[in-house]
Amino acid sequence: MALDVGVIGVGMIGQEHIRRLDGGPGGSRVVAVADADAERAAAVAGQLPVAKALPTGEELIASDAVDAVVVTSWGPTHEPYVLAAVAAGKPVFCEKPLATTQESCRRIVEAEVAAGRRLVQVGFNRRYDPAHRALKQAVDGGAIGAPLLVHCAHRNASVPPHYTREMSIADTAIHEIDELRWLVGQEIVAAQVFTARKSSRGGQLQDPLLVLLEMADGVLVDVEVSVNIHYGYEIRCEVSGETGTVELAEPAPVTIRREGTVAGLVPADWRERFALSYDIELREWADTVAAARPPQGPSAWDGYVAQIVSDAALRSLSDGARVAIELPPRPDLYTPTATP
Amino acid sequence: MALDVGVIGVGMIGQEHIRRLDGGPGGSRVVAVADADAERAAAVAGQLPVAKALPTGEELIASDAVDAVVVTSWGPTHEPYVLAAVAAGKPVFCEKPLATTQESCRRIVEAEVAAGRRLVQVGFNRRYDPAHRALKQAVDGGAIGAPLLVHCAHRNASVPPHYTREMSIADTAIHEIDELRWLVGQEIVAAQVFTARKSSRGGQLQDPLLVLLEMADGVLVDVEVSVNIHYGYEIRCEVSGETGTVELAEPAPVTIRREGTVAGLVPADWRERFALSYDIELREWADTVAAARPPQGPSAWDGYVAQIVSDAALRSLSDGARVAIELPPRPDLYTPTATP
Amino acid sequence: MALDVGVIGVGMIGQEHIRRLDGGPGGSRVVAVADADAERAAAVAGQLPVAKALPTGEELIASDAVDAVVVTSWGPTHEPYVLAAVAAGKPVFCEKPLATTQESCRRIVEAEVAAGRRLVQVGFNRRYDPAHRALKQAVDGGAIGAPLLVHCAHRNASVPPHYTREMSIADTAIHEIDELRWLVGQEIVAAQVFTARKSSRGGQLQDPLLVLLEMADGVLVDVEVSVNIHYGYEIRCEVSGETGTVELAEPAPVTIRREGTVAGLVPADWRERFALSYDIELREWADTVAAARPPQGPSAWDGYVAQIVSDAALRSLSDGARVAIELPPRPDLYTPTATP
Amino acid sequence: MALDVGVIGVGMIGQEHIRRLDGGPGGSRVVAVADADAERAAAVAGQLPVAKALPTGEELIASDAVDAVVVTSWGPTHEPYVLAAVAAGKPVFCEKPLATTQESCRRIVEAEVAAGRRLVQVGFNRRYDPAHRALKQAVDGGAIGAPLLVHCAHRNASVPPHYTREMSIADTAIHEIDELRWLVGQEIVAAQVFTARKSSRGGQLQDPLLVLLEMADGVLVDVEVSVNIHYGYEIRCEVSGETGTVELAEPAPVTIRREGTVAGLVPADWRERFALSYDIELREWADTVAAARPPQGPSAWDGYVAQIVSDAALRSLSDGARVAIELPPRPDLYTPTATP
Ligand SMILES: [Mg+2]
Ligand SMILES: [Mg+2]
Ligand SMILES: [Mg+2]
Ligand SMILES: [Mg+2]
Repeated sequence: MALDVGVIGVGMIGQEHIRRLDGGPGGSRVVAVADADAERAAAVAGQLPVAKALPTGEELIASDAVDAVVVTSWGPTHEPYVLAAVAAGKPVFCEKPLATTQESCRRIVEAEVAAGRRLVQVGFNRRYDPAHRALKQAVDGGAIGAPLLVHCAHRNASVPPHYTREMSIADTAIHEIDELRWLVGQEIVAAQVFTARKSSRGGQLQDPLLVLLEMADGVLVDVEVSVNIHYGYEIRCEVSGETGTVELAEPAPVTIRREGTVAGLVPADWRERFALSYDIELREWADTVAAARPPQGPSAWDGYVAQIVSDAALRSLSDGARVAIELPPRPDLYTPTATP
Repeated sequence: MALDVGVIGVGMIGQEHIRRLDGGPGGSRVVAVADADAERAAAVAGQLPVAKALPTGEELIASDAVDAVVVTSWGPTHEPYVLAAVAAGKPVFCEKPLATTQESCRRIVEAEVAAGRRLVQVGFNRRYDPAHRALKQAVDGGAIGAPLLVHCAHRNASVPPHYTREMSIADTAIHEIDELRWLVGQEIVAAQVFTARKSSRGGQLQDPLLVLLEMADGVLVDVEVSVNIHYGYEIRCEVSGETGTVELAEPAPVTIRREGTVAGLVPADWRERFALSYDIELREWADTVAAARPPQGPSAWDGYVAQIVSDAALRSLSDGARVAIELPPRPDLYTPTATP
Repeated sequence: MALDVGVIGVGMIGQEHIRRLDGGPGGSRVVAVADADAERAAAVAGQLPVAKALPTGEELIASDAVDAVVVTSWGPTHEPYVLAAVAAGKPVFCEKPLATTQESCRRIVEAEVAAGRRLVQVGFNRRYDPAHRALKQAVDGGAIGAPLLVHCAHRNASVPPHYTREMSIADTAIHEIDELRWLVGQEIVAAQVFTARKSSRGGQLQDPLLVLLEMADGVLVDVEVSVNIHYGYEIRCEVSGETGTVELAEPAPVTIRREGTVAGLVPADWRERFALSYDIELREWADTVAAARPPQGPSAWDGYVAQIVSDAALRSLSDGARVAIELPPRPDLYTPTATP
Repeated sequence: MALDVGVIGVGMIGQEHIRRLDGGPGGSRVVAVADADAERAAAVAGQLPVAKALPTGEELIASDAVDAVVVTSWGPTHEPYVLAAVAAGKPVFCEKPLATTQESCRRIVEAEVAAGRRLVQVGFNRRYDPAHRALKQAVDGGAIGAPLLVHCAHRNASVPPHYTREMSIADTAIHEIDELRWLVGQEIVAAQVFTARKSSRGGQLQDPLLVLLEMADGVLVDVEVSVNIHYGYEIRCEVSGETGTVELAEPAPVTIRREGTVAGLVPADWRERFALSYDIELREWADTVAAARPPQGPSAWDGYVAQIVSDAALRSLSDGARVAIELPPRPDLYTPTATP
C-alpha cells in the first residue's frame, strides 16, 4: 500500500526528507513538490521518478494525487499550509516549529479539534533518536528512581550570521523543551534564562545561555545553550534521580589513539548526529498514516505547548526574571495514549 | 520501481529479512516464500500483503513473479538454490555461509563466472555495521598509519546445545575472517588455532579459542572466540598501526549510574547488536538490484575464500599446527572496484 | 629535618591525618595529641611511636615539642585553636571549615595579618586532587578558550541522621565554593539556591539542591548537591569554554564486563575518592612548613571568603532569592603568588 | 625509626628513587651514594641533606651508616652488588632486571637461600600500580569467574637508537612476564613470539611483536609489544574469564572536548604513567625493611623466573618456534605467603 506524499518547501531539510520518503519505508513515494522558488521545485521534481512540481502549496494540498503532506517551508508559512491540510482532511507532517507564534499554533489546534481527529505531526525528531529513547526507557523502567533534576547541554560549533539572540531559545532550546515534556512526562511550569560570560566568538550574540525550567512535579532542569563552541555539535543530557542517574553516552562509534590522545570524533552538526532519528521519525510517520491510523508522534498540541514555553523563556531572556507558565486546558483529542 | 523478492527458508533469520524487505526500502516487497516446512511457509505468507507460499525453492526461483531471491534456508541447501538462481539469471542474496564446503562454494563461483556477471551476494553483515565502517574509514584514511596488528574478540553469552567445536570457527569466527579481508584489504595466508583453559560453562565444548591469522602483507591478527561468556554479546576489534590505533567503541547509547557502578548495557545477542547493519545491508542490496546494477556487497568469491580460510583454521583446530593457505587465482569477475 | 606535629581532635579525620603525618613525608612525626575525649587521646597516642596525649589543645599548642599544629576538632572549636597557634607563631593546618561563622573567620584573618605572616592553611583538599589539578591545567593552558560556564555535581550516597538542610551548603557545597574560586581564578559575586523535587530518601531534608553561582567575570556555575543518591559518591565537573570543554573523567581504574553491563566501580564515599588528595595535601603542607616557608595552600582568607559565600547561599536557601555578595578588601598578605 | 639507605647508581632512575626515599616515607633518608661516574655521585650527594658519595658500591654496602641498599646501576653490575648486600645481611632493592643472565639470577637465589632469609626485592613496579591492583582484586574476587585468556599491549611512543631487538623481550615484555605470574597466580610454561608486519618507524628493529604465553593452568596470554607507536605510552590488559572480563581503564584524569574530538590525554612515557606505582613500591619497601620485616615484594626468585621466561621468549624470537619452559624446583624460602 503505497503512500503518495507531497512536499511543500524543498530547501535543504525538505530535500533530506524527500530522500527518506521517496521509494522509502512503507512503499512511500513523493508525487508532488512545491516551493516559493518555482525553479527549485522543478529541479527537485526532475530528479524524482514520479514527482510533479506544482505552482503552490495550496494546489499541492488540494491535489487528488497527494495522500499526505510534508511541510518543510519557511516557518511563517507553516500555519496556512497546515490549516489547509487539516481542512482537506489529509495527514500533515510539519517541521518544527509548528508555527512561529502561539496564536498560529492555537489556531491549528482549534482547527484539528474541530476536525475531530489527529492529522498533524510536528518534527521534534529527538523523540526518535535511539539514544534518547534508551534514556527514556531507563527513566521509565525505574533504573534511577524518580527523576529529580535534569542537566542538558545543546551545543553548536557555530551558527550562521543571521542567527539571532531569540533563536537560541525559539529554534535551539525548543528541542529540549519538547524533549523534556516527553522524557519526564510532565508540563513545564516556569522558565528563567541566565546569561553567562559572553563568548567572543559569537559577535553581538548573547552566547551561551543557561535556561532553567521547572516542571509540574518539581523536577528542575538546567540547559546550557552554546551556539559557537567550535569543537563540534553535541547534545548532552543527564537525568539525576533518587537512586542514580542516566545520561546520553558519547555517540562516537570508534575510539582513535593518535597524537597523544585517545579520542572519539564529535559530530560536525545536527544532520550528522541525528540522521538516524530522522530516518525513524519519517518511517514511523509514513507507516502510520499509510495504515490510515492517526499519527503517533508529537502533536499539534505539543507544538503549541512548546511555543508557549519558548515564549515564556524569551520573556525571561529580555529581563532575567522567572516567568511562570500556565497552559490552556488540553483538548480531549490530545489525551495521551501510547506515544513513541 | 518495486523490487519483488522471493524468500527461501522462513525460519527466524528469514522472517527478520522479510520484515526488512516487505514494504521496505526501494519499494521492495515479498511476493513469494518457500520452506521445507510447507505449513510454516503458508503461515508466513498469510501475514504478508501480497506473498504466496510456493511448494519448493526451485519453483520460487523459476516464478515470473520473482525478481530477486533471498536464500535463508538451512546451510546445506544453499548451493542448489544459489546455482538455480544464477542459472535463472536472477540476483540472489544468500545468508552466510555461502555453502558448507569449499567445493560447493567453488561450483557457485564457477557458475557465476560462466554466467559472466555478478548475481550473488553473501550475508556478511559486518561490512554494513556503522561502527565497522567507521573503523575501516579511520584505517583507510590514514589515522593510524599502516595497520600492523589486529586484536579481535567475538563473544557470545551462550550457545545452544547443538553447537559444536567446529562451529566456533565455521559459524562464528567466519565473520572475522570476512571482516578482516575487507578491513585490511589483504588476503589471509595462514591460520593457527590455540586452545585456552576450557570454560566450565560450555560442557564438552572447547571454549574459548584464540585464532591467529597472518595476512599477505604481514599484518598479524588474534581473535578471541568465546561462546559461553555469560555477560552478554560483544564484538571487540582494535587495529594497531604504525602511529596509533583505532578500536570499536562501546555501543551502549546511555550510561547508567546505579548500585555502585557507572555502566553501559551490553547487547544480549547478535540480533540486538547488529540490527542496524542488517537494515543497511538489505536496503543497499535491494536498492542496487532494483536499479539493475550488480550487487556491491560480499561476493561469491568472498564466500568461497572465507570457506577456504575457515577450513584451514579447522584443520589447525584439530592438531594445533599452523596451516598455510594458498588461494586459487581470482577470476576477473571479482576484481575489486568500489565495494562498500 | 623532622617536622614534629601536634594534632588537636583525634576523631576519624584526625586519625586519618595522623596516619599520613606520622613517620610520613618530609620526615614528619606526630609528637602530641589532644582531644575533648581524654581517653581517646590517650588511646591514639598509645599507638604512635613518640606521641604524648596532652590534656588540652591549648597546652599542645604551647608545647615546645610541637613545631606545627593540625586542627581536626569539632568545627566550633577551630577559632580558638587557630588563634592560639597564630599567637604562638606556629604553622597550623585547620580542616575545613576554617571556622563556623564569618566573624570567627574574620578574626583569624585579622590575627594573621597582625602577625604579619602566613601561618594558617585550610583543608580544602580538592585543590590537591590530581584530576582537579588536570582540570585546572587544561583551563589555564587554554585548551578550551576562556571558561564561560561550569557544571558541577556533588553527590553522596547517603548522609547521617544529624545532617541538616544547612549542611548541604555549609559542609558540602562549600567544597565547590572554594574549588571554583581556585579553578576559575575569580571571586563569586552572587548565589542563588533552587530546590528541586524532593528525594523520598532524605526524610525531612530538602534534597537535592541546585546552586547557581555567578563569578566576577560573568562565568556562571550550576552545582547539583545530592546527598542521598544511593548509587555512590561522585564529584562531577565540566567547564564549558569558548572553543571546547573539559570535565573530570570517571575515576574507576578498571572496567568490568559482567551481568549484562560494562562498568566502572564508583567510590563509596569521599574517603575513597579523595584519599590521594589528602596524601598530597598533607605532604605538601609538611614539606613546606618543615622548610620554614609559608604554607602555599588555601589560606585563612580563602576560608573566610568561602564562609561569606556559603552564608549568602544559605540566605538564598531560606527564601529562594538571588543574593549578591560583596567581599571586604583583601589584605596584602593574601595577594596571590604561586599557589598550588 | 629512620631507615638509612645507600643508593648504587645515580642515573635517571637512581635519582628518581632517591627523590622518593630521602626525607620520604617511614622517615627514610639517603645517607650514601656511589656511581661508576664519581663526579656524578658527588654532585648528587651534594644536593642531599646528609648523603656522602662513596668511591665504590662495595664500600657503600659495607658502610655501617647504611641500613639498606638500592641498586639502580647498569644491569651487568647488579649481580655483584646484590650478592655483596646479601653477604652483608642487608636488605637490597634491585631495579629490574635482577641480573642479565639466568645464571647470575640463580647465584643470587642460591646466596639468599644460603643466608636463610629474604633480603632481596626486585623492582617490578607493576604490582604496585593501583589500576593493576584493582585488576587483580577483580580477578581474585571472582568478578569474572576463572580467568581463561589475557590480552595485553605494551606500547612505547619511541625507543632510543641503542634499543635492540632483544630488548623488546628482555627489557619491555619482561614487565608483563612478571605481572602475569602475579596476576594469574600461575607459572608460565611456554612462550612463542610472532613477528608482525614491520613498522617503518623503527629502523632495523623488528617491531611490533606478538608474544604468546601459556600458563600452567591453561590460561593463554597474548602480548602486543610495540615500541615505536608514536601516539604515546600505553599499557593495556584485559582478562577474559568464564563469566566476564576486566580490563585496565583509560588513566586520563580529565576528558577534553576540542577540535572535533572528545579525548583523554595519553601519558608520554612510563615515568608519567607509573609515577604513583614507584611511590607506593618504595614506600612499602622502606616501611617493611624499616620494621625489620622481610621484603614483601617481588623476590629474587621472581627475578630469576622472569629471566628464564624471557630467555625462552628470546629463543622463540630467533626461530619462531614454541619454547616449553621448565622451572627448577622453588626453594622453600619463596613459598608464597601474603605478597602484595
Ligand atoms: Mg527537528
Ligand atoms: Mg551474518
Ligand atoms: Mg576537605
Ligand atoms: Mg620497573
